[in-house]
Amino acid sequence: MEKYDIVIIGAGPVGLTLSTCLQRWGYRIKHIDNRAEPTPTGRADGIQPRSLDLLRNMDLKRKIMAHDPAKVYEVAFWDPNSKGGIHRTGTWASCPKFIDARYPFTTLLHQGLIERVFIEDIEKHGGQIQRPWTISGFKNDGQDPNYPVEVSLVHVDGTMSEVVRAKYLFSGEGARSFVRDQLGVKIHHKDPISHVWGVMDGVVRTDFPDIKMKCTIHSDSGSIMVIPRENNMVRLYIQIASSTDPDFNPRKTATAEEVQQHAKEILKPYTITWDRVEWYSVYPIGQGIAERYTLDERVFMGGDVCHTHSPKAGQGMNTAFLDAVNLAWKVHHVESGFSPRNILSTYESERKKVAENLLDFDAKYAKLFSSRLPSAGEVAGASNNEPEENEFVKTFKASCEFTSGYGVAYKPNLINWSNEHPAQHPLFLAFQRGTNLRTGRYFIPSTVTRVVDANVVHLEQEIPLNGSYRFYLFAGNPAKTRNAVRDLATYMAASNSFYSVFSFKDIQKDRYHERHNPTTSFVTLTTIFNSPRAKVSIRGMLPDLLARYRDHVYADDVWDQRVPNANAAAHAKMGLDEEEGGVVVVRPDGYVGCVVKLQEGQGTSEALNKYFSVITGKKLGEERAAL
Amino acid sequence: MEKYDIVIIGAGPVGLTLSTCLQRWGYRIKHIDNRAEPTPTGRADGIQPRSLDLLRNMDLKRKIMAHDPAKVYEVAFWDPNSKGGIHRTGTWASCPKFIDARYPFTTLLHQGLIERVFIEDIEKHGGQIQRPWTISGFKNDGQDPNYPVEVSLVHVDGTMSEVVRAKYLFSGEGARSFVRDQLGVKIHHKDPISHVWGVMDGVVRTDFPDIKMKCTIHSDSGSIMVIPRENNMVRLYIQIASSTDPDFNPRKTATAEEVQQHAKEILKPYTITWDRVEWYSVYPIGQGIAERYTLDERVFMGGDVCHTHSPKAGQGMNTAFLDAVNLAWKVHHVESGFSPRNILSTYESERKKVAENLLDFDAKYAKLFSSRLPSAGEVAGASNNEPEENEFVKTFKASCEFTSGYGVAYKPNLINWSNEHPAQHPLFLAFQRGTNLRTGRYFIPSTVTRVVDANVVHLEQEIPLNGSYRFYLFAGNPAKTRNAVRDLATYMAASNSFYSVFSFKDIQKDRYHERHNPTTSFVTLTTIFNSPRAKVSIRGMLPDLLARYRDHVYADDVWDQRVPNANAAAHAKMGLDEEEGGVVVVRPDGYVGCVVKLQEGQGTSEALNKYFSVITGKKLGEERAAL
Repeated sequence: MEKYDIVIIGAGPVGLTLSTCLQRWGYRIKHIDNRAEPTPTGRADGIQPRSLDLLRNMDLKRKIMAHDPAKVYEVAFWDPNSKGGIHRTGTWASCPKFIDARYPFTTLLHQGLIERVFIEDIEKHGGQIQRPWTISGFKNDGQDPNYPVEVSLVHVDGTMSEVVRAKYLFSGEGARSFVRDQLGVKIHHKDPISHVWGVMDGVVRTDFPDIKMKCTIHSDSGSIMVIPRENNMVRLYIQIASSTDPDFNPRKTATAEEVQQHAKEILKPYTITWDRVEWYSVYPIGQGIAERYTLDERVFMGGDVCHTHSPKAGQGMNTAFLDAVNLAWKVHHVESGFSPRNILSTYESERKKVAENLLDFDAKYAKLFSSRLPSAGEVAGASNNEPEENEFVKTFKASCEFTSGYGVAYKPNLINWSNEHPAQHPLFLAFQRGTNLRTGRYFIPSTVTRVVDANVVHLEQEIPLNGSYRFYLFAGNPAKTRNAVRDLATYMAASNSFYSVFSFKDIQKDRYHERHNPTTSFVTLTTIFNSPRAKVSIRGMLPDLLARYRDHVYADDVWDQRVPNANAAAHAKMGLDEEEGGVVVVRPDGYVGCVVKLQEGQGTSEALNKYFSVITGKKLGEERAAL
Repeated sequence: MEKYDIVIIGAGPVGLTLSTCLQRWGYRIKHIDNRAEPTPTGRADGIQPRSLDLLRNMDLKRKIMAHDPAKVYEVAFWDPNSKGGIHRTGTWASCPKFIDARYPFTTLLHQGLIERVFIEDIEKHGGQIQRPWTISGFKNDGQDPNYPVEVSLVHVDGTMSEVVRAKYLFSGEGARSFVRDQLGVKIHHKDPISHVWGVMDGVVRTDFPDIKMKCTIHSDSGSIMVIPRENNMVRLYIQIASSTDPDFNPRKTATAEEVQQHAKEILKPYTITWDRVEWYSVYPIGQGIAERYTLDERVFMGGDVCHTHSPKAGQGMNTAFLDAVNLAWKVHHVESGFSPRNILSTYESERKKVAENLLDFDAKYAKLFSSRLPSAGEVAGASNNEPEENEFVKTFKASCEFTSGYGVAYKPNLINWSNEHPAQHPLFLAFQRGTNLRTGRYFIPSTVTRVVDANVVHLEQEIPLNGSYRFYLFAGNPAKTRNAVRDLATYMAASNSFYSVFSFKDIQKDRYHERHNPTTSFVTLTTIFNSPRAKVSIRGMLPDLLARYRDHVYADDVWDQRVPNANAAAHAKMGLDEEEGGVVVVRPDGYVGCVVKLQEGQGTSEALNKYFSVITGKKLGEERAAL
């Protein structure tokens, strides 16, 4: 019987992202999908700013952008006017300036093109998607303790079947999930209202001036959402029926012509006609969330299997990406011996909370969409990116951060340090107490100069999604931190430190050209000096342990508009002392784990060892370093 | 006999750039190359900042960048130290901040990968390169007045041949040119010194700290130039012989091992070894410039056919790109009836001057390379991007602008307006008299917001290399310029204006979805308002003629660090009045043609008509517009 590290069911965004990560990290994967080919047109299409960061970190952004997607920077609101037509009552930024985003826009591209980018990457790394196959059964029977899950797979035409064993099974099947049904996991419907939506992608002719903007349009004839697309296309979302209708029928449908006629009525006095329709679909959708994402930490679920909601906020695919990355690195760390199995419990606790927030937001947004819209006066502030603090704008602000993806905030747990974390040490820093970084949230972007080649780079992107913890030694003023840096490296070199315990044992292997993981795949080390680049000498200023990461030494010498008076903008943005620096540990998926003060002596490494002891389940750093 | 618009000989950078432009613009091309396949490795590899602008304007930059080229931001200088080794005496920016460049770095990628990007584009547009074929004869016999040039082509193995007729013949054959020899065009050797160079691309191991920087290294054992490359490679240039040597032999050679041994001596006390050598070549090179680029304005030459020089400054390929683009649009304008044939004379006058500057620079640079280098004190200023005004730094500044490509300054002629231009009108603006723009130089980059979709865009890139003049109406404060904008559009709509004369006659053809050339391929119209985007109404604020270019209306509402106090940064960078605006005409290749004050009445259009009358040879605007 064939054995795999993981069997993945479904090659939509969640399954493909998981597969891409694990394939790159060397796992043996059986990945099936019940469709004969990737999504040909339509379906999900919105990549939020934060997801674009992730795709870049996976080196996939350039391939996405090669398709020339549409970019949404602003949203326009149209309301009925007094003449029976519509008028624009305001616009606002899709990702306002108060969010420090590299890419303050939503990227629109049809799901099939996005899927193909992942599939190409999987194939480049030796994997493949087996189509059209589906799952017919599974059990975690533990008969093989190393491969406890048995999975039965069949060709969709029933002519072929196979039974394999795996360490893990992942369902990314979408809203209708065989695995979820078999597990008996219930879907909770948070908002009892369900809707029937019509969605149409096509090329139009119109004198409606905002046809290339994202718009919500309310008219006396109904409501519509307009979203620009690649290839000069426009997507229209029209609500066809709602469970609040007196005669609601979830199977209610409408022809493309009916939807077009409806759109023409809504857009009056503007005109619209279609040159072609690329995709048209009608589907009922309700809000739902799975009560569990896993029962045994062997069979996992993610994406639409676990959460369904309206398409209007463009969150589905983005949530799927993040579900997958969250699970991928945790599985990798368990299988690499970096963490005990208990880390896997954080997949459900972290990602289910995000889905709950999404559904709360979606319910609020749906209500907003189907009831009143803000007046021009209310949104005037927002359109200038200086939102006034009325109730509506407050809601909007919170929503922008959420919809851009920058609002994801994982609660304190064993990975995200807090005052309640089992690892306690006086040198831990916390939000507004020594740092601007918040654990469980994104690592603030900053621009620095790479020392070896003087390239101006985005620090938060310098370590790729390689499954390693990201260790940022903000080394402050090198003249002042010389001893602290030396001491940190000395104690990290001790045989029982978080660094040494997970270092490669086969040190005779030639890793000269390895940039990110020359000594361990547990962590990638970077150093950032508050110094002009030309004055940084890697060999002169860093102990060997850090100097070996020569491609990850940076000068914090690039001016930043957000901290115009800082000498060392990256230090300043992190809220770290520009002279004294600090150490930031970022999780493999890019969220902050902990922040530690940099100090002479053993304290800094003590705090780090305590933190990693909790995650890795190993007693780290308890030996005295041989000095 | 087959007839072509143009026969192009040679598929190196100059031939491919010319072919790519003309293929896109719909010409029938016979393009041959005597090599069986594109450059497999090595050869030219440096794309200068300005060339990257051009490649982006051709929508080829992303494909270049997909190869992950090396980027050079700084150059390091190493000199002998007192202990028999070498030490770094300074570094400076490759493209310092005083140059307003979008991409302040040099991009390093081997010529074959660059060639393939062009070839793919040619093939996408229906063209191809015929290989391995060569030219065996040609004559401009005028026997067919529409296709005056007869060209004889043969397969390199002599088994096949064909004779075709063409409107034009272009030689991009490289330094050894059949066409140039046949025409009897002489090469002038400006600098009598010639050199033999060794060049080696490979993957190395070294403790030399600047191996990922561009370096010039002088040691007591000789000199070397280090250039980082894609795929973790390093290129080394070593001078093997010079005609100033007492025993100079232009056929002197050296083995790869000898060059490596020489490099090891030069780099001491650092060590270097090679994991692999991808390419190694030894070649003699002298400075030379062709006395003519064309004799009859039918048979043209460009690239290395016309200018050869040392490889050290990485200028060859960049000069080739610009030769080709300069010729491409002029041929296109003649063949489209936009200009009389006399515009073709400016190809030689403009491009030969650039080549002369290049050779002057190269001679100076070669001398610098083979004699003394600046001391640390001299370069200290430059490394902080605040060059001191000593003689050396002055030379450096001038060279940086030149080597980045931003120094190209075409002299006044019929296209580049000046006080001596035949078109004179009181509303023409000139450098430091109403504008910061200089005719014959690059259009200053600026960032604006596109009105239709609120995308933040680079204005100078918004019109692709489509062969059209670029018309930028900086419309100032819309409340103040309303009448001026209306008047300009009214007079442009007159039947004898530069705009109307070249407008499409087949107006029944559906061009609804055409963004850049909806009404004419002579010019693309853009409007930039000093206004927040949300306050710009295209239909409310622009006459139909300008409103039709709806995708080219912008709000000048993005803050720019270079003009921090400006309300309208793009207006301010151009040196135009932020309230009153102005009109900038940019040539199809991106160089400024003329700048005109925007004023109520007929004056602005009068000046523009006079300017275009000179270039197009038509009496434009002399009818009174019917108001």
